[in-house]
Amino acid sequence: MTTVLKLGGSVITEKDRAETIDGQALDRAADVVAEAIDEPPDLVLVHGAGSFGHHNAEKHGVSVTTGTHDAGAVMDIHGSMKTLNRFVLDRLHDRGVPAIPVHPLSAGARDAEARLTFPTDQVATMLEEGFVPVLHGDLVAHAGKGTTVISGDEVIVELGTALDAERVGLLSTVPGVLRDDEVIPRIEAFDEVADVLGGSDATDVSGGMAGKVEQLLSLDVPASIFALDDLDRFLAGEFPGTTIDGR
Amino acid sequence: MTTVLKLGGSVITEKDRAETIDGQALDRAADVVAEAIDEPPDLVLVHGAGSFGHHNAEKHGVSVTTGTHDAGAVMDIHGSMKTLNRFVLDRLHDRGVPAIPVHPLSAGARDAEARLTFPTDQVATMLEEGFVPVLHGDLVAHAGKGTTVISGDEVIVELGTALDAERVGLLSTVPGVLRDDEVIPRIEAFDEVADVLGGSDATDVSGGMAGKVEQLLSLDVPASIFALDDLDRFLAGEFPGTTIDGR
Repeated sequence: MTTVLKLGGSVITEKDRAETIDGQALDRAADVVAEAIDEPPDLVLVHGAGSFGHHNAEKHGVSVTTGTHDAGAVMDIHGSMKTLNRFVLDRLHDRGVPAIPVHPLSAGARDAEARLTFPTDQVATMLEEGFVPVLHGDLVAHAGKGTTVISGDEVIVELGTALDAERVGLLSTVPGVLRDDEVIPRIEAFDEVADVLGGSDATDVSGGMAGKVEQLLSLDVPASIFALDDLDRFLAGEFPGTTIDGR
Repeated sequence: MTTVLKLGGSVITEKDRAETIDGQALDRAADVVAEAIDEPPDLVLVHGAGSFGHHNAEKHGVSVTTGTHDAGAVMDIHGSMKTLNRFVLDRLHDRGVPAIPVHPLSAGARDAEARLTFPTDQVATMLEEGFVPVLHGDLVAHAGKGTTVISGDEVIVELGTALDAERVGLLSTVPGVLRDDEVIPRIEAFDEVADVLGGSDATDVSGGMAGKVEQLLSLDVPASIFALDDLDRFLAGEFPGTTIDGR
């Protein structure tokens, strides 16, 4: 029973300060993960870009749809995500979690129609061997565009499907999708929440909630969006926050 | 016309001093590569482990056949190879080569029969987009064994085949396979050189010449083994040193 958990970039970093982690939030998340995992863990982690990748991607004008052929820009953006990945791994190792890195730039690619190929044998084998693979938002090679951004949300959708995951969770800064400050418990179609999400924008896959909800609706498994206070409940098998189920 | 070039670990590092590069040799190799590449380069580089990966793999008792489930050991071995990879990338960037990293741990995996799956869409797309992908010896997840070593030689054989490379070269510390201090110009079968290579040892894929020759004989393209003095000739389309052709 594989669980795919995304640690939101805005949870684990200080979104307004370039390349700064939120050490307290990351420690809390790592504590809960270390406490919750079984032996073997059967858990894949993915973290967002937060103030690491976004800052550098903006600097170089790179997005999901606008690419770069500049190796220096690739090194800046990819390198900043590796730095954040290393912080996440370190905090997990401090707590005995057998986490090891998987960098999407080394694995995936998009063709000229922007279709993503993302092989997952490496992740599946790591899981079977008892490791906790830790992926992240990154760049991927993109035919005709050099390299473009792959968001952490896109990575969890790929993994959730390819690994036939039983549970998918997004640790967010908010306790779920909100309407009038109340958590919407369940979303089965985008129309139900278009009013509060301000409409869908296909390019908005690495930022706003609309893109997240739309991506998660494409999964074959229910996905939960919740905040740090509910991480233990999610990892214990409950469905805190908003459950997104587009099946 | 794709070229796959391996920079031998013992060429670019001080083999007897742990985690020390041979900066002079690496600079010379980077100079020749920068001088030789076309626009677009159509070149894939792979570097060996030298005193980075080997030192750490030995420390943790990890080899191509003996694995580890210890995340700390994985971080040591894989981390040391990323450090060496960064040195190689830096020297190439200094000379304007659009090099970007591909880490085998993030891409490949071995099944329970030790068969390697190594997806190469990411490398092919990087090449088409004008980047120079730089891979290296590393660890890969291995069913039943945790993670095991993948040598740089194994990576070039995978890439040479999957990318349908036209030229494969191994930059070595010696000018070719030697018999009585003379370079053997051509090898078409292992038997021809078993006397000088001291017999084949299947586990010797990351060190001695016997393993290299055996692996290169499995390629569908001739491969050259040569020293730094001949790198420019190899990149100019010649066949310096020893040509291994098992077709």
